[in-house]
Amino acid sequence: MSTTTHPEATIEAHPTLPLITITREFDATPEQIIKAHLDPDLYIRWSGPKDLTGRIDYWDARRGGRWAFTHMRGDEEYSFYGSFHEITDDKIVQTFTFTGEPDGVSLETMTVEDLGNGRTRLIAQSLVDSMDSRDAWLRSGMEVGVRDGYAKLDDLLAGDAL
Amino acid sequence: MSTTTHPEATIEAHPTLPLITITREFDATPEQIIKAHLDPDLYIRWSGPKDLTGRIDYWDARRGGRWAFTHMRGDEEYSFYGSFHEITDDKIVQTFTFTGEPDGVSLETMTVEDLGNGRTRLIAQSLVDSMDSRDAWLRSGMEVGVRDGYAKLDDLLAGDAL
Repeated sequence: MSTTTHPEATIEAHPTLPLITITREFDATPEQIIKAHLDPDLYIRWSGPKDLTGRIDYWDARRGGRWAFTHMRGDEEYSFYGSFHEITDDKIVQTFTFTGEPDGVSLETMTVEDLGNGRTRLIAQSLVDSMDSRDAWLRSGMEVGVRDGYAKLDDLLAGDAL
Repeated sequence: MSTTTHPEATIEAHPTLPLITITREFDATPEQIIKAHLDPDLYIRWSGPKDLTGRIDYWDARRGGRWAFTHMRGDEEYSFYGSFHEITDDKIVQTFTFTGEPDGVSLETMTVEDLGNGRTRLIAQSLVDSMDSRDAWLRSGMEVGVRDGYAKLDDLLAGDAL
């Protein structure tokens, strides 16, 4: 069990646009953070709340590739899918739908900034098409998945998986 | 040369969100409008300004499939790419980037409404992440491509291609 203290993720709603921005620093290089988001075996190990397990349903991490995964807790399943619009050395742009809300879709843009000394700032922006959708996201409890997931990513980075 | 008069497309910027909505009616069924957007050979025949020709670079019209096409005028080329996030009988959700502005991306949601009597209303929403991007789109002259393209689609629908 990890005894590390984890930096807090900042989760901010834009005051006037249907945008949420998550900012988080890691003891990692930009390359490691990008890889942790693109490699399916790594991604499923750290993403989501800590009391869930996960499986990759399909995953093709390239421009125009599609992805899907499922988180599980007992008999409950939560599935997500989307496509990778663009992937560069410091950016991943992808779409995202939770199948429990099949009409909802967000456009997710993650960028990494090299802070030097093996530190990286991750900035993850979620864009939806209404302020109601933005507020529903904030009320959904996704914050737990974000914080738990990044704490698990810290632990992965402290090991030798990446 | 067609002598048809074409209905106007309505192009509206949302007052407070980075959204543009295009609305246009067609003498067609919803199925025909969806097919005209998914079949690459049809799509390249009607899309874009009337003084350009086009080619499909790649096209995989299914959930998670990728697409790219290029419009040409003499030596000029304008390329676009994205992915199909979701496709249903009455909706297509896809991402869209013009390679001349590689950092720009929009999330496009097109829905079709059956008006009866062989008429269909198309509603195409473009979502971007800032009001500046929205306004740049409005200033870009894309309106010509929209209006010319839908006029060419009217002509295709009047023939027997669909």
